[in-house]
Amino acid sequence: MFKIRLLVTALALVSSISVASAWETLPTEAPAPADNATTAAKVELGQMLYHDPRLSSTGTVSCSSCHNTMLGGEDNRPNSMGVNGQTGGRSAPTVWNSAFNTVQFWDGRAASLEAQAAGPVTNPIEMGMKSWDDVVARLQSIEGYKHYFEQAFGKDAISKDNATKAIAAYERTLITPNSPYDRYVSGDKSALSAQQVRGMEKVAELGCTSCHSGPAFNGPGAFQRFPVIADGYWEAQYHFKKDKGLAEVSKNPADEHLFKVPTLRNIALTAPYFHNGSVGTLDKAVMLMGKLQLGKDLTKEETADIVAFLNGLTGEFPKQKMPVLPGTPGSSFN
Amino acid sequence: MFKIRLLVTALALVSSISVASAWETLPTEAPAPADNATTAAKVELGQMLYHDPRLSSTGTVSCSSCHNTMLGGEDNRPNSMGVNGQTGGRSAPTVWNSAFNTVQFWDGRAASLEAQAAGPVTNPIEMGMKSWDDVVARLQSIEGYKHYFEQAFGKDAISKDNATKAIAAYERTLITPNSPYDRYVSGDKSALSAQQVRGMEKVAELGCTSCHSGPAFNGPGAFQRFPVIADGYWEAQYHFKKDKGLAEVSKNPADEHLFKVPTLRNIALTAPYFHNGSVGTLDKAVMLMGKLQLGKDLTKEETADIVAFLNGLTGEFPKQKMPVLPGTPGSSFN
Repeated sequence: MFKIRLLVTALALVSSISVASAWETLPTEAPAPADNATTAAKVELGQMLYHDPRLSSTGTVSCSSCHNTMLGGEDNRPNSMGVNGQTGGRSAPTVWNSAFNTVQFWDGRAASLEAQAAGPVTNPIEMGMKSWDDVVARLQSIEGYKHYFEQAFGKDAISKDNATKAIAAYERTLITPNSPYDRYVSGDKSALSAQQVRGMEKVAELGCTSCHSGPAFNGPGAFQRFPVIADGYWEAQYHFKKDKGLAEVSKNPADEHLFKVPTLRNIALTAPYFHNGSVGTLDKAVMLMGKLQLGKDLTKEETADIVAFLNGLTGEFPKQKMPVLPGTPGSSFN
Repeated sequence: MFKIRLLVTALALVSSISVASAWETLPTEAPAPADNATTAAKVELGQMLYHDPRLSSTGTVSCSSCHNTMLGGEDNRPNSMGVNGQTGGRSAPTVWNSAFNTVQFWDGRAASLEAQAAGPVTNPIEMGMKSWDDVVARLQSIEGYKHYFEQAFGKDAISKDNATKAIAAYERTLITPNSPYDRYVSGDKSALSAQQVRGMEKVAELGCTSCHSGPAFNGPGAFQRFPVIADGYWEAQYHFKKDKGLAEVSKNPADEHLFKVPTLRNIALTAPYFHNGSVGTLDKAVMLMGKLQLGKDLTKEETADIVAFLNGLTGEFPKQKMPVLPGTPGSSFN
């Protein structure tokens, strides 16, 4: 009897250690690629470019219009609104902690923040510029940018490559550490409520963490199929399968409905949910993840506990200065 | 002979004193109305509301979308773009130094910044909210705003009146002092070039200052007719008279084509020009003001000198912190 109890305790300890080691805090710095070391000058320029609506054909849409750095890093809309009021079929992912994504965009078609930054600018329904040559020409026409590109990259440095590098360098600073979860994992056991701790344990027990683990709860794999379980009832309501995910880009049937696993950090601030933004509330999103990914009907209590835990993933937003953008020369943008 | 020379010198002195006293620097603080003293708590809340796109029906348009505080206080577009890509017929005036306007809007229909702030939010082509009741309901749904309204106005203070007061209080801090012109007038004679000084003298000599004088170059009168001189040639190109100005509101024929006299401060940053944003460059705007307001054909040199002077009216933009907006509860805005 004693031996059995000892064994159980030992197993519990092992299990508790193994679970504990799986809960990671968010690093306060993001790694940068070898060819784009993060520097203060790049971050300063990148913050300007990120917030500059003159990177769009109408002069009305900046990166921050859809990935709002004053909010949860996106726009709380099902689908974002680009130039001339146009909308697409996907919901803007948050820019906060995007430095910790393995791939970028919902379909994961960009391997880096640099590659991602190049996309929306020339997308006709997003920022609508005809070409990056046009973007570079416009940046060159804004006299004041010359200085900032020079500080960051040296002389005659206004180019697509450097603009996207600067934006990516800035985005690598958009990290939200010290959430209640991080403080809990770091030893402050009062940082999460009993309900939140129950939700945290439930997330591990159900297997949510097999896709949503690591410091940003978006790995270890970069992609996951969604939905895993075919369900005509929910599909009729939310049309998740209309979007083929990675297969839209790769044209490979094996990639159908593969999506980037999104971070769970700050998820309480980023309604509505899923790639098409069709689900308005977090409790419904949790319920659907249970049904469609795990084949489980979560109880009301389980759902409430998990939602409470997810609310504990809201981090501290860094204090930023408001950029002063270089002035527009005598011309208009429309 | 000696007596005559003395008299000429005396007159020249008087004239130079009288001209010098007409050149005023920009105050670093704006006066506030008796019922809305500027406080740090109101300014903080007002900065949030000003930059919050959730004050629009689509969740995409904030005050700053058209009156951009990272740029020259507007959007460098002929006509601004509101919700769903809609455009109106007027060009967004700059928010910088708008605290020194006697009246607000191009047609001067608002007597205060508070009254102005209430307008665009429920304008169907601007921010598109159905009513201020809806705006207040939305603000109440954003839990985090409660604290900031309470700090600024006391308990249960979320209302149209307080929201517009906070926005106005913030706008009163948007002042751009220390332009080259201000430094010149304050005694630093190297702050303006010889060409800029020639332009400054020309502005007084031509009579531009009869409408554009005072610290913000927008008085002493609040209104002026534009164009003063009928000219079919330019009208055919720029359609200035399509907009009846104050008469659009008052329906009084005597008010036809009366517009608020706009500030000249930071004018180099606010192309395109005039109430309908139809003129792309500052030199063309100066040429047209000569023709249509003064009945004068300015020489190329005169125009260039005045443009050089106007470039000396670009001030120092205050360093601002980027607001962190209270998070959106589980819902979307579209």
